[in-house]
Amino acid sequence: MLITALAHLLILGRPTGSKLKVAVLAATGMVGQRYVSMLSNHPFFRVAVVTGQNSVGRKYGSATATSNLPIGKDAKGLTVKATNADALDDVDVVFSPLPTDVAKTLEPELARAGFTVITDASPHRMDRLVPLIVPEVNPSHLGILEQQRKVKKWKGLLVATPNCTAAGLALVLKPLHDTLKLKKVIVSTLQAVSGAGYPGVPSLDIIDNVIPFVKDEEEKVETEPLRMLGELGKDRISPAKFDISAMVHRVATTDGHLESLYVETEEPFVPDKVEKILKSFRGEPQKLKLPTAPAEPIIVSNLEARPQPKLDRYAGTVPGMSVVVGRIRKGLDSRSGRLTLLSHNTIRGAAGSTILTAELMYRKGLLS
Amino acid sequence: MLITALAHLLILGRPTGSKLKVAVLAATGMVGQRYVSMLSNHPFFRVAVVTGQNSVGRKYGSATATSNLPIGKDAKGLTVKATNADALDDVDVVFSPLPTDVAKTLEPELARAGFTVITDASPHRMDRLVPLIVPEVNPSHLGILEQQRKVKKWKGLLVATPNCTAAGLALVLKPLHDTLKLKKVIVSTLQAVSGAGYPGVPSLDIIDNVIPFVKDEEEKVETEPLRMLGELGKDRISPAKFDISAMVHRVATTDGHLESLYVETEEPFVPDKVEKILKSFRGEPQKLKLPTAPAEPIIVSNLEARPQPKLDRYAGTVPGMSVVVGRIRKGLDSRSGRLTLLSHNTIRGAAGSTILTAELMYRKGLLS
Amino acid sequence: MLITALAHLLILGRPTGSKLKVAVLAATGMVGQRYVSMLSNHPFFRVAVVTGQNSVGRKYGSATATSNLPIGKDAKGLTVKATNADALDDVDVVFSPLPTDVAKTLEPELARAGFTVITDASPHRMDRLVPLIVPEVNPSHLGILEQQRKVKKWKGLLVATPNCTAAGLALVLKPLHDTLKLKKVIVSTLQAVSGAGYPGVPSLDIIDNVIPFVKDEEEKVETEPLRMLGELGKDRISPAKFDISAMVHRVATTDGHLESLYVETEEPFVPDKVEKILKSFRGEPQKLKLPTAPAEPIIVSNLEARPQPKLDRYAGTVPGMSVVVGRIRKGLDSRSGRLTLLSHNTIRGAAGSTILTAELMYRKGLLS
Amino acid sequence: MLITALAHLLILGRPTGSKLKVAVLAATGMVGQRYVSMLSNHPFFRVAVVTGQNSVGRKYGSATATSNLPIGKDAKGLTVKATNADALDDVDVVFSPLPTDVAKTLEPELARAGFTVITDASPHRMDRLVPLIVPEVNPSHLGILEQQRKVKKWKGLLVATPNCTAAGLALVLKPLHDTLKLKKVIVSTLQAVSGAGYPGVPSLDIIDNVIPFVKDEEEKVETEPLRMLGELGKDRISPAKFDISAMVHRVATTDGHLESLYVETEEPFVPDKVEKILKSFRGEPQKLKLPTAPAEPIIVSNLEARPQPKLDRYAGTVPGMSVVVGRIRKGLDSRSGRLTLLSHNTIRGAAGSTILTAELMYRKGLLS
Repeated sequence: MLITALAHLLILGRPTGSKLKVAVLAATGMVGQRYVSMLSNHPFFRVAVVTGQNSVGRKYGSATATSNLPIGKDAKGLTVKATNADALDDVDVVFSPLPTDVAKTLEPELARAGFTVITDASPHRMDRLVPLIVPEVNPSHLGILEQQRKVKKWKGLLVATPNCTAAGLALVLKPLHDTLKLKKVIVSTLQAVSGAGYPGVPSLDIIDNVIPFVKDEEEKVETEPLRMLGELGKDRISPAKFDISAMVHRVATTDGHLESLYVETEEPFVPDKVEKILKSFRGEPQKLKLPTAPAEPIIVSNLEARPQPKLDRYAGTVPGMSVVVGRIRKGLDSRSGRLTLLSHNTIRGAAGSTILTAELMYRKGLLS
Repeated sequence: MLITALAHLLILGRPTGSKLKVAVLAATGMVGQRYVSMLSNHPFFRVAVVTGQNSVGRKYGSATATSNLPIGKDAKGLTVKATNADALDDVDVVFSPLPTDVAKTLEPELARAGFTVITDASPHRMDRLVPLIVPEVNPSHLGILEQQRKVKKWKGLLVATPNCTAAGLALVLKPLHDTLKLKKVIVSTLQAVSGAGYPGVPSLDIIDNVIPFVKDEEEKVETEPLRMLGELGKDRISPAKFDISAMVHRVATTDGHLESLYVETEEPFVPDKVEKILKSFRGEPQKLKLPTAPAEPIIVSNLEARPQPKLDRYAGTVPGMSVVVGRIRKGLDSRSGRLTLLSHNTIRGAAGSTILTAELMYRKGLLS
Repeated sequence: MLITALAHLLILGRPTGSKLKVAVLAATGMVGQRYVSMLSNHPFFRVAVVTGQNSVGRKYGSATATSNLPIGKDAKGLTVKATNADALDDVDVVFSPLPTDVAKTLEPELARAGFTVITDASPHRMDRLVPLIVPEVNPSHLGILEQQRKVKKWKGLLVATPNCTAAGLALVLKPLHDTLKLKKVIVSTLQAVSGAGYPGVPSLDIIDNVIPFVKDEEEKVETEPLRMLGELGKDRISPAKFDISAMVHRVATTDGHLESLYVETEEPFVPDKVEKILKSFRGEPQKLKLPTAPAEPIIVSNLEARPQPKLDRYAGTVPGMSVVVGRIRKGLDSRSGRLTLLSHNTIRGAAGSTILTAELMYRKGLLS
Repeated sequence: MLITALAHLLILGRPTGSKLKVAVLAATGMVGQRYVSMLSNHPFFRVAVVTGQNSVGRKYGSATATSNLPIGKDAKGLTVKATNADALDDVDVVFSPLPTDVAKTLEPELARAGFTVITDASPHRMDRLVPLIVPEVNPSHLGILEQQRKVKKWKGLLVATPNCTAAGLALVLKPLHDTLKLKKVIVSTLQAVSGAGYPGVPSLDIIDNVIPFVKDEEEKVETEPLRMLGELGKDRISPAKFDISAMVHRVATTDGHLESLYVETEEPFVPDKVEKILKSFRGEPQKLKLPTAPAEPIIVSNLEARPQPKLDRYAGTVPGMSVVVGRIRKGLDSRSGRLTLLSHNTIRGAAGSTILTAELMYRKGLLS
């Protein structure tokens, strides 16, 4: 990863002074810390503002002293501000992993006030005029922003990234749908506790246990990928026309959501062919060589018992950004198949996808 | 449970001397200990012989000193014998949770020699002439034993019980198939480490992890329930005519296999109706009030996040014998549905089902 | 346990109508549920009032629907009241596992108002006039209550039970101090997450981890046992004259605090002798055959790797009430020794010790 | 770490061809993999031979395919050989993490045959003529090798590194003993499951559990540090003259042994002063800037709940090589104190210390 970063400094980087200034909201939270850590030494962006709730007025380094994520010196020296428009000065991009209820009202407010907000929160993901982006899946959906400006009359922009489980799922469904045309997806998930934030899942609930329920999760997993795989029309995105059934489970892993899929397709599901389709999949971030783009968005493992959260969650050139797929097998007939995927829920499923979206927007000239 | 036991002593029990003598093979293993523990103070049976591999010649109580299962005084005093026909004296029933490779040759040998063997091992489960029994599901399949005697020319009998995951699954599929006629079952499992025996799953493999693979498990889950739900013909059992797809996962729970099902049915899947169907299901063991028969084979929970292994694995009147079902919901259309079930893998999925089978055979006069 | 209970019904029980009425405060919490569960079918007491914070007005059975502790039908039917004096009607005893800050002011208020309060909370444990009781250790300390009435001029009484770690420790130190006279105790603990209540320890903090810190715990472990092993004088209890050093750790176990002790003694520490001392220890609850008194307060295991939380936390005749001790060895010289103990933190360390204290007071005529 | 490696390439490295050739025995095991991973791109050494037991004849990359440690391309291409002298060709150093029983006879045999063996196995650690080395603690003990050659008449050499728990402990005791003179050390450990190798601890034994026993561990922890802190005489090493009491526990962490110490000292134990002593400690590896030497052998944390295995095991400039110390407090009197340390058991406690020892020997001209 350092090599990648060095390369960027040489090829893409610009002097710190000319980097875009970004704000990370809720920066002291678990996902917020991921953002700040991933943005340390970023070639396009530098963290200029961090906001929080309980640590306002403290140095960011002190407010996150118990964390073991590597955090840049500059960020450590920032003073945590309260989360509101006044705090944001003249930042170029606002990253928002805000809690749902706060995000609901504050994000549109910030967009109205002229900020470009890229959010990881859920309230606006299904808004007709808010693009819901995984950069490898549907970069073209950013096109709806023109309509957003017109209709909402905001001075800024609001872009969303999906639910942590939906992100990895959409990434794998994209090449499958493009080639085999999906009819039905039955997915069962085994999700890490970090997906519930911090403090999140009580240890008493999960030691020696499984919880077959995550509030509101199944609804998101069943709708968001359809929107992302949908088609951009003149003034709306038509969702993809297949069905998803989700049964979610919380298990005692720290990071990495595992998802086992049974799919029915219009074209024959031939495991060897599917393996090639997934392995060779590349998106616009790979073509543009964006800093946070992994060389392979999807890594396929042929080992019989993989992917596994502990072993595979950091696989690939940009740790946490590749989805690892294994156990590709046929289903009950020739037009059905099975596979298991693993996706890092706070990186590919949150901070990483959002930063990658910002990088994509930067390269498309949408940030400035 | 004690109350139940007391009742049995009053109603069904007979003086110790007249109880049937049973042998438990591999009795020092994890499942073997369950057997001996469940057979303590049993109204029909008393453990007369225990066999093992590494503890031959030691007292059973000393060989299992580190266990925390309650084990009867009589059993503790038995001397562990080597596992072979000579050890078995004149026992009336042989319970076998032997390892696959040993079971394969030894069990038919014992049946040939005149013993009635009820096995929890896998090698003979799909033998055309060996009934594969969950007593609530297919008691009538014991009828094939007549044919078994004729064709195999054994002096004894061989009866099998299913794989630990298949046992709970078959129990829930039975009333569903009877009423809604199943077409397709897509099941995803989250299985406890005790399913792999002892020492079994290394802790390094499962702490903070999930393993999406259990050797040979999916094959068993996809075939055994079909056999059990099949129809007894003159000289064979025709498997039920629907399809099962299984994706199995090992998780960091000690006991209790959780299974999430997506089913497609010929009749409409109406959750309220399904709930009633499952709740009201009773089998022959309930009608006969067999000692190890739980009052309700299937318990339905309406709590939003249940069943959970830690909370529900011992639910019901006979701990570990009831399957707990929750999250009954419709599927993607009116003829599909979803539910999650939990079944104790070493009790309902092993020792318990086998003992219940022996009780059923006893009452039907097949043991003596 | 049922047999024990039956015996009590025959020997000690009285018709429900004549049982003492008790209130359980914070009854919907984790420890509160333990109380109500242990008080189901109790021969002396019946739960007449349950209080809570977020479930006021709901039926207790519904407010605790997700629990898997067995709870009596009568208790399930009670309506949860707010936690204050008005709620308590004319109950004879009030059990209080209240949070520290609430306990601090409410408990003296209730005692002043005439209630007999037996508390598991910490604020009043070191109050000169409040007896801090483990019934096997220092029943005589109840004698200070006379002084309490005089000085505090309360119409009721306030009795405390110790910190969950201190309870098991004091129980083991008692016979050691009586026979070998302790000089120094160096204790290192491995504590279960249930010790922090619910929701308590976040799973993200404890999966694949150990936390070498529990707020305020070491202070309690270093002082409370000295008070309990102290001598009752005319108007105060003089603490025992030895020193305790505690280093505490939170680990990923659900129930059962394990404590490893290095002790220095005035008399020689001879492991065989120590084993006998601990094994033969009996207290007043055993002599009085109190319902919740385990036959052996201290169980000694000679297995090389015991005690273990999962295997030993429910050992003995009253599950969770016996402390299991193992690995008794000599120390660095002849007047020092080592041992490891395990004590169930929410039973012996909380609800159980408190109920046993109430039973003791009942038999001594202090309740009525 | 990469920066460090780059520096080495510039300053210290030599073309691959001229690097010393090393063999890693038992290279497919858990610790063996650590060795090979840490030796990838090493400036002094290159792995020329890997041996194993069950994978003989396979490519090392294929034999370790399920591992997620980064392993160099060259090593992946090696063919696994059987573990014996013939396999070793003309390697310059042999790293041995062999199982105890094999190590016992094979290691002296190899030394006799002319190989320089640096072993992580236990059998020869207490041999009077085998230096037991932690490079920061007792580099001078390599001086005994002269005597070893003379007395044993081996053509090669045998050097040992300590038990995984003893390694971290000795590193912290060294500066304490040098400054405060230790009299007594009471240590209680919470050890990771990787300390037992693979498959090692069964998950059934450790989920929701603690095991207060590790075979032969306490003996090692009580003797090895004394030897390492001892004084090199003419023909033997006199052990340090203080006492260690160890009580060990296995807990459900994957990597990182935590140890809580109570120490008695001749000089006053002043926490602030102790903090400075530990922080400023540097050994010969730091002075020589050896490739695997961490900048700070001991990192002190002032956070109230640290060190923690999950957060601190990779702290410092060379991941896994620094010991993290926290909770430095005074003890029961002015000449006693307490602290908690964390040490990565397969790096500082095994592969890392051994490689660092080889680096030290290389620089001292002992390898060639």
